Amino acid sequence: MTIRVGIIGATGYTALETLRLLLRHEKAVVTVATSRSEVGQAISAVHPILAGSMSLNVTAYDATEVAKSCDVAMCCLPHGASAESVRELIRAGVRVIDFSADFRLSSTEVYQHHYGVEHPWPERVGSTIYGLPEWYAKEIASADLVANPGCYPQSAIIPLGPLLAKDAIDPDDIIIDSKSGVSGAGRSPKLNSLYCEANESISAYAVGNHRHQPEINDLLNRFSGKSPSVVFTPHLTPMDRGILSTIYVRPKNVTLDQVMQIWHETYKGSPFVHAVDHLPATKHVANTNHVQMTVRQSGNRFVVLCVIDNLIKGASGAAVQNMNVMFGLDQQLGLR
Amino acid sequence: MTIRVGIIGATGYTALETLRLLLRHEKAVVTVATSRSEVGQAISAVHPILAGSMSLNVTAYDATEVAKSCDVAMCCLPHGASAESVRELIRAGVRVIDFSADFRLSSTEVYQHHYGVEHPWPERVGSTIYGLPEWYAKEIASADLVANPGCYPQSAIIPLGPLLAKDAIDPDDIIIDSKSGVSGAGRSPKLNSLYCEANESISAYAVGNHRHQPEINDLLNRFSGKSPSVVFTPHLTPMDRGILSTIYVRPKNVTLDQVMQIWHETYKGSPFVHAVDHLPATKHVANTNHVQMTVRQSGNRFVVLCVIDNLIKGASGAAVQNMNVMFGLDQQLGLR
Amino acid sequence: MTIRVGIIGATGYTALETLRLLLRHEKAVVTVATSRSEVGQAISAVHPILAGSMSLNVTAYDATEVAKSCDVAMCCLPHGASAESVRELIRAGVRVIDFSADFRLSSTEVYQHHYGVEHPWPERVGSTIYGLPEWYAKEIASADLVANPGCYPQSAIIPLGPLLAKDAIDPDDIIIDSKSGVSGAGRSPKLNSLYCEANESISAYAVGNHRHQPEINDLLNRFSGKSPSVVFTPHLTPMDRGILSTIYVRPKNVTLDQVMQIWHETYKGSPFVHAVDHLPATKHVANTNHVQMTVRQSGNRFVVLCVIDNLIKGASGAAVQNMNVMFGLDQQLGLR
Amino acid sequence: MTIRVGIIGATGYTALETLRLLLRHEKAVVTVATSRSEVGQAISAVHPILAGSMSLNVTAYDATEVAKSCDVAMCCLPHGASAESVRELIRAGVRVIDFSADFRLSSTEVYQHHYGVEHPWPERVGSTIYGLPEWYAKEIASADLVANPGCYPQSAIIPLGPLLAKDAIDPDDIIIDSKSGVSGAGRSPKLNSLYCEANESISAYAVGNHRHQPEINDLLNRFSGKSPSVVFTPHLTPMDRGILSTIYVRPKNVTLDQVMQIWHETYKGSPFVHAVDHLPATKHVANTNHVQMTVRQSGNRFVVLCVIDNLIKGASGAAVQNMNVMFGLDQQLGLR
Repeated sequence: MTIRVGIIGATGYTALETLRLLLRHEKAVVTVATSRSEVGQAISAVHPILAGSMSLNVTAYDATEVAKSCDVAMCCLPHGASAESVRELIRAGVRVIDFSADFRLSSTEVYQHHYGVEHPWPERVGSTIYGLPEWYAKEIASADLVANPGCYPQSAIIPLGPLLAKDAIDPDDIIIDSKSGVSGAGRSPKLNSLYCEANESISAYAVGNHRHQPEINDLLNRFSGKSPSVVFTPHLTPMDRGILSTIYVRPKNVTLDQVMQIWHETYKGSPFVHAVDHLPATKHVANTNHVQMTVRQSGNRFVVLCVIDNLIKGASGAAVQNMNVMFGLDQQLGLR
Repeated sequence: MTIRVGIIGATGYTALETLRLLLRHEKAVVTVATSRSEVGQAISAVHPILAGSMSLNVTAYDATEVAKSCDVAMCCLPHGASAESVRELIRAGVRVIDFSADFRLSSTEVYQHHYGVEHPWPERVGSTIYGLPEWYAKEIASADLVANPGCYPQSAIIPLGPLLAKDAIDPDDIIIDSKSGVSGAGRSPKLNSLYCEANESISAYAVGNHRHQPEINDLLNRFSGKSPSVVFTPHLTPMDRGILSTIYVRPKNVTLDQVMQIWHETYKGSPFVHAVDHLPATKHVANTNHVQMTVRQSGNRFVVLCVIDNLIKGASGAAVQNMNVMFGLDQQLGLR
Repeated sequence: MTIRVGIIGATGYTALETLRLLLRHEKAVVTVATSRSEVGQAISAVHPILAGSMSLNVTAYDATEVAKSCDVAMCCLPHGASAESVRELIRAGVRVIDFSADFRLSSTEVYQHHYGVEHPWPERVGSTIYGLPEWYAKEIASADLVANPGCYPQSAIIPLGPLLAKDAIDPDDIIIDSKSGVSGAGRSPKLNSLYCEANESISAYAVGNHRHQPEINDLLNRFSGKSPSVVFTPHLTPMDRGILSTIYVRPKNVTLDQVMQIWHETYKGSPFVHAVDHLPATKHVANTNHVQMTVRQSGNRFVVLCVIDNLIKGASGAAVQNMNVMFGLDQQLGLR
Repeated sequence: MTIRVGIIGATGYTALETLRLLLRHEKAVVTVATSRSEVGQAISAVHPILAGSMSLNVTAYDATEVAKSCDVAMCCLPHGASAESVRELIRAGVRVIDFSADFRLSSTEVYQHHYGVEHPWPERVGSTIYGLPEWYAKEIASADLVANPGCYPQSAIIPLGPLLAKDAIDPDDIIIDSKSGVSGAGRSPKLNSLYCEANESISAYAVGNHRHQPEINDLLNRFSGKSPSVVFTPHLTPMDRGILSTIYVRPKNVTLDQVMQIWHETYKGSPFVHAVDHLPATKHVANTNHVQMTVRQSGNRFVVLCVIDNLIKGASGAAVQNMNVMFGLDQQLGLR
């Protein structure tokens, strides 16, 4: 059996990364790649890195056509636009992995507040599976729609979730200082993403109002039953890819060893999540689907350090991992 | 009048940066550059960027010789070694600006605990002026020895000092998450400083035990009379230069505007310190002696953001600024 | 006397670099900064690096107003648009340094062929001084209009001009392989200038048809009387600034030492041009107005290596140098 | 069948890259990793990127032990040292892929002249297969020892070989201007490889005397029967990985289309070599085993542009490709 995959919105960085991962996947093949802007072009003209490796042509998006030739659609569209297409695709009978934030939150109100648009398909908000196989593999296996998780949220909730669930840290005093590579800003030409603006510079952005903050709160609450109070600050870092989250928490009668133990137990069946002894650098997980995390003490805090590749575990790799779970395959196919 | 300057330990990055700044200084001239390893070489052979601009030869260090031809010595040696030379130079009658940490702390015990060496000249520990002209210009003006401040400490104490002095923030809950360029690691070849290790990667280091943490505590205490409890985490960032400190504090009945107001008042006579409206990036101060800082709210915290160039305001620029104050010149000479 | 300077088109990288250099210039002050898009804003809102250092507001362009408050206008507009404004400014009585290519070439036909527009002021094409003070200081001193030279051309003609003039190399076999930082592409958001496109990658562009090729040919011909045949290939290099030109020439009965000697003689009065022994890196001239060049043998060729900072010697520094010459000042003012 | 692979000298960048590629290889497993300096450590302590993915411990090198547990040894030692171990391994009955230059050249004299050491096993010089499966797949299939090719040479000989073989270009006038990422300099701490030396800078090195020049000449001669005269200039480029070779040749009665045609014909069975229409950037082949190349006209020259990933196609990927050929597998296993 070969899974036929459609890429909806094929021109951005997460689409490219997904295409590259699927080249390595022995049980999946990309049959459709759609875009509004590049219809008729070879996919290798849009992404020259695919020259010689993939011979697909970009087509216009049409849900019915996608349904005919795909078992699953990876929807790489911006929020709002994505929900519309997701609804069409689901109704046309294709399973969907949605890269946007449209179905990640549990509340339409929170969505509309933070994304500033009316939700096109509110019925599925709150009932859609959040695509973190480390927590929700069983639900993902049978889902028709999976909300692929955000990059920053994964770097925070994977280490924090189990600690909250075990009551090991104070839910009311969590500070997440995250550093992301520039690819997180997408492939649209804009001033802040220019090489000469981002290079040789680090800066915070969206301080106090980033859209991933409610996603983090929401998921921690769902998984742990604790409703945490999170301060989250994202930073733009001069590198292509990678997220490091430095997380300051107050331990509640646990030792550093016990934190490591909680992680080892929670993730013992997860091939991609690793509690490590060294201080992880984003380079240690670059171009992989792996998560590395550790913990140190500093004064009265524990400092949790977690790294992922924002384009892979933070987006495309998580999508392939979700696809593997949805189709009953080894989670690691295409991701080694 | 022209100030004759000696550079003791002329091969590292801060020495080079000092040499470059002094090229632009209309009232100072470098008369001596010493090194253990490169004696007899042209300074432009050690630092090719000086080819055609500076024709000095490197000499062996000799305190008496330095005293003959210099009004001030900039001592760019490692800790421990520096204090020895500083003592000789002071005794030989030269005023000294010391780049090392040897005379920054107020307690010999704290020094010896964190630096792991016995202090060569304990009498001057605690009585040496800390070279932050924004706070101590008067004392610097008449000092024979100035302890040039650390890079991370400046990025923290310049914004935090006045807030503590005005009782605007809780001294017991301060988290400083700092990101530094790689030049902070110096010019000695070692694995972690290699291009292919540091490039395209961000990581924390020395979590919970960096030597700049006691310096920060000490200075905040000295300036504000508050003995704060600081959690400090430095990060290695893939860029040559720059420090961004993202600082999480708990406000005490102050507004964001009042924080800005406190900064404006404290630093109204300081040509290099700027409370700004935008979110500062390290690029906004790269290759300058300026400090940019601002504040935002996030949940129940205020987030203070402060940027400096670690090699200039964080080291060589501060030294030139100190020299200007020591010799009664405009602070900005050589630093525009 | 203080020279009053107007910056026409103040939002791009060369305008910013000029503003920064002029901050250091003790005999010049920026009195006007114009822009179509940012009228009324503080210049530090457009360029946050100027916060605290420069308090000018951006105004709309008006030649008469510029003439009232400026002794010289630095025109940082795109080609075509620039010539129009230059004409107005000259007629309004301001001396002008034009950063565009509009007045660099000696032939209107060549201009129109390579730039694809009709020239707005053909009378001044061919009679305008090319702003290379190393060759044309006397003419620049009395000029009302100076064509500021291109970045790539300077890195080629400064080393090659004297070698052709002395008949030391074959004019019919010159290959110039140039590598430039990304700032050469300007500050307009476009795909190829995005961080994630340009970072960690090097590529050639405009192979065989770059507009700087006729400028190089033209200037070599003007200066040396030799009409050379040049193959020129520019490359986009993952760095902010800097140009390295690796130039392959066939020597004509000269030794490497004689090449160095020709350069030393030609440029002995030029404070910025240095024939050096080491292999120059762009970092050796970054953030300076200096040129470093050397020569090596490889097989039957001589390999000439020349580095400049494309934003400074390649644009803004050359402009300040030209301004200094136009107003009878030391060439190095503001450029140390 | 699973191929058991030993990595001899497992601490450098090419060893790490080989380990990572083999993680993805469904028919190969690493059974031994040796090192002089890290014996007893987990391989993931040496290379933290392998944490959670590979559980091998580093052992001391012993040819007999390697022979017991390996079908093939990848020898990642420096030249000279490598030949010694290769001989022992071959005699112990293991097939060897040697990453060093020790067996690449056809003449011991040329080797000794350029590498400055006496060759430890001169009998095998000249009779060892050069590991370029695009040309020598048949010989590689049955070889006991394969000399893995150099990075720069591959970027030059893959495009040039067929053009010389077809007499399409002048063999006496070839200029190769190559730009390499810093990983080519290896993982030993040395000044020129420091982040702050290499970052934001490009420079030429080893002009006229790089050791890859005789390798290029030798291979072009072997493959095409033409003894070319090559001028080769390598450059250090601020990026982790990638080589772009810009090659200037004189065409002999061929068109650009005919050059493309020659490449298409020569490499029609090669899954990794692609003649493309676009101007290739190193990013287009980063982290892959692919080669992209194209040709343009500039004046009287053809400009050939060829990109590879220096660590993969330039080293570790080529080794895995060679291993695949040696063991009768699809060339693409582990390399998709």
